[in-house]
Amino acid sequence: MSEIDIAEVREWARESGELARGYFNNVRRERKADRSWVTQADLEIEQLLRERIAARYPGHGIMGEEQGVGDVGREFVWCLDPIDGTGAFVSGLPLWGISIGLLRAGRPYAGVVYLPLLDDCYAVDAGGPAFRNDEPLAVRPPGPVDSTDWIAVGSYTHRDYRITFPGKVRALSSVAADCCYVARGSAYGAVIGRAKLWDLAAGLAILAAAGGAAVGLSGAPLDLAPLLDGRKLPEPILIGHPDTLPELRGHVSRR
Amino acid sequence: MSEIDIAEVREWARESGELARGYFNNVRRERKADRSWVTQADLEIEQLLRERIAARYPGHGIMGEEQGVGDVGREFVWCLDPIDGTGAFVSGLPLWGISIGLLRAGRPYAGVVYLPLLDDCYAVDAGGPAFRNDEPLAVRPPGPVDSTDWIAVGSYTHRDYRITFPGKVRALSSVAADCCYVARGSAYGAVIGRAKLWDLAAGLAILAAAGGAAVGLSGAPLDLAPLLDGRKLPEPILIGHPDTLPELRGHVSRR
Repeated sequence: MSEIDIAEVREWARESGELARGYFNNVRRERKADRSWVTQADLEIEQLLRERIAARYPGHGIMGEEQGVGDVGREFVWCLDPIDGTGAFVSGLPLWGISIGLLRAGRPYAGVVYLPLLDDCYAVDAGGPAFRNDEPLAVRPPGPVDSTDWIAVGSYTHRDYRITFPGKVRALSSVAADCCYVARGSAYGAVIGRAKLWDLAAGLAILAAAGGAAVGLSGAPLDLAPLLDGRKLPEPILIGHPDTLPELRGHVSRR
Repeated sequence: MSEIDIAEVREWARESGELARGYFNNVRRERKADRSWVTQADLEIEQLLRERIAARYPGHGIMGEEQGVGDVGREFVWCLDPIDGTGAFVSGLPLWGISIGLLRAGRPYAGVVYLPLLDDCYAVDAGGPAFRNDEPLAVRPPGPVDSTDWIAVGSYTHRDYRITFPGKVRALSSVAADCCYVARGSAYGAVIGRAKLWDLAAGLAILAAAGGAAVGLSGAPLDLAPLLDGRKLPEPILIGHPDTLPELRGHVSRR
């Protein structure tokens, strides 16, 4: 029995997506302190989600990309990225989405990632299966890699890493989307370099329920708890089917 | 005075896009001889466009990705990629589109690129301005490159090139989309490695009308005429504002 109503969280994500679509190709972008982009859409969606969550789950903590960290000592902590992929959003690119993750005791518990231009809603709740809309998800099983197989990477990969994956390499612009495309077995895996907890929480919940796993580039297991203060991943992580991660690690090296 | 009715070509592109959307996430993929993907959507759209063109412009030549090269000695030659970005299409990714280019005497004359999931229709006709829907396009003028500026590259770039661009690098999965995002000033430039004429013809017409240009990685000017037999680009090309191309060339080297 889940502690939350995932159908309602999906509705919040869709409502947020409608709000974002209204601003798409029609919004001024501004710089944050780290020089990344923020828009009125990011700000309004995070505010909307915080209000919905606070009203429905007053005992839960919330952290979000725009308003930061608060009450993360609670058992349940919501991790919000109102628009994951703001860089794509302000560039008129289609792959960005609303990412709503929920941790319980520092571990992924539930998550929704909604990609408005695709109208794809990825969701998982409390140990249940993961879905894209009504379709159950499963990561790609191990097997020979073809030249059309692909992995997702970040958009600074050319600067930070040497990649020798024998198939294609795509930079999608959204960590949440990276996790979803791995979870549905479309991408063979992904290399995630610079993410924070609000980028990862929902996607990793969906990934795990689809049979996927994450590991540090060094081989160290991923521990999300230290990220609750809003810091970046201490090292890049790789995601995919657990049996393919050692091979994937072999295809990625730091420059 | 244009030799064609560009509004009608835009309608063909939208009609094709509707057809493709019906197959999206709902079609079997098959391998071509070069191991790339093809679907029923690619085949039906090329057939539809060939029929429309042959009925309306019987004296024109047509070449297309699926049915190949025919009558390319004519003054006007249509270059069709029914779905540019079939790899993205079969992966459930959003960035793929219908590319309809028209050459006159071997040079870009007109073009339409329609990206169905964005409902973005890029078009140019016979020396007129280029548009995205109703918005005129202009490439980004030269200026300092910020860490959030980005270039588009192909999905085998990690294997073929070393990129030192100081901003972001994205692999969008569609050469036609690459051209459009450069033409609208969203991308700073693009590196196009493996394209054929049907990938390029519409996008380069749009790019040129937006003030952009293309050059070979060696610095050699781009000549499309040899590609009329269906061969690949003899070397990668760079696209962007003409005054930024020398700098962009400095950021790309072969491995």
